[in-house]
Amino acid sequence: MKSQSESKLRCKMEIAKTPKPPYYAVIFTSLLENQNDGSYSQMAERMEELARKEDGFLGMESARNEVGITVSYWRDLASIKKWKDNIEHQEAQNLGRNKWYKNYKVRIAKVERDYGY
Amino acid sequence: MKSQSESKLRCKMEIAKTPKPPYYAVIFTSLLENQNDGSYSQMAERMEELARKEDGFLGMESARNEVGITVSYWRDLASIKKWKDNIEHQEAQNLGRNKWYKNYKVRIAKVERDYGY
Repeated sequence: MKSQSESKLRCKMEIAKTPKPPYYAVIFTSLLENQNDGSYSQMAERMEELARKEDGFLGMESARNEVGITVSYWRDLASIKKWKDNIEHQEAQNLGRNKWYKNYKVRIAKVERDYGY
Repeated sequence: MKSQSESKLRCKMEIAKTPKPPYYAVIFTSLLENQNDGSYSQMAERMEELARKEDGFLGMESARNEVGITVSYWRDLASIKKWKDNIEHQEAQNLGRNKWYKNYKVRIAKVERDYGY
C-alpha cells in the first residue's frame, strides 16, 4: 500500500521552469529494493525540500513506476558539487546505497538546448 | 482507467546500460491533456520500439505519474537529429503537440560523468 507521503511524491505536476541553456541536469535513476517501509519517500521529500534551498538550484522533475527518475537542474557544476556534499544529503546517499536502492545511476549532463511549451 | 498497454508502459524495470561518457541524453518531460483515449500510450510504445532500432541509440528510461519523464541516450547529436527527423516520429510529434500534451519540454544534454551500480 502506498503511504500518503508516497502518493504525494508521485503526484508532482510541474515541468521545471528552467532558464535559457546552458545549465546542468542531474539525471538520477533508481530501482528500489522490494522491502520499503515508507522511509524512502519521506527522505525523498525531505531531499527535494533541501535541494530547493540550495544556491544554483533551478528546478526538479520526478516520476516513479518501477524505475524512478528524478531530474534536477542546476546553474553549474559547483552548485551540484555543493549539494552532493550537503551533510544531510550525504546521509541520505549512504542510506540509499545501504538500504533502499537495488540499482541506481547518476548522470551529470550539460543541457545545451531546449524547446517546448 | 488505465489501458493494458499503458500499464505495461508504466512498468519498465530497467536502468539503461549506457557506455562510458561522453554521450547525449534527451530529457523529455510532459504533462498530458486530461482527455486521453489510450492512443497516447500506444504511440509511446511504438516510438520506443522505433527508437531502439536507430543507429546511435544507447538506452531509454521512462516513468509517468502526473509528469511523465522519458530520458533517451544517444551516441551523438547526429543520431538525435536523425531520430527527430524520422517520418513516423515526426507524425507522433505533431500529434503530441496538437492532441496529447498540455505542456512538454525537450532538453538535449551532454552527459559528462556518471556513477552508480
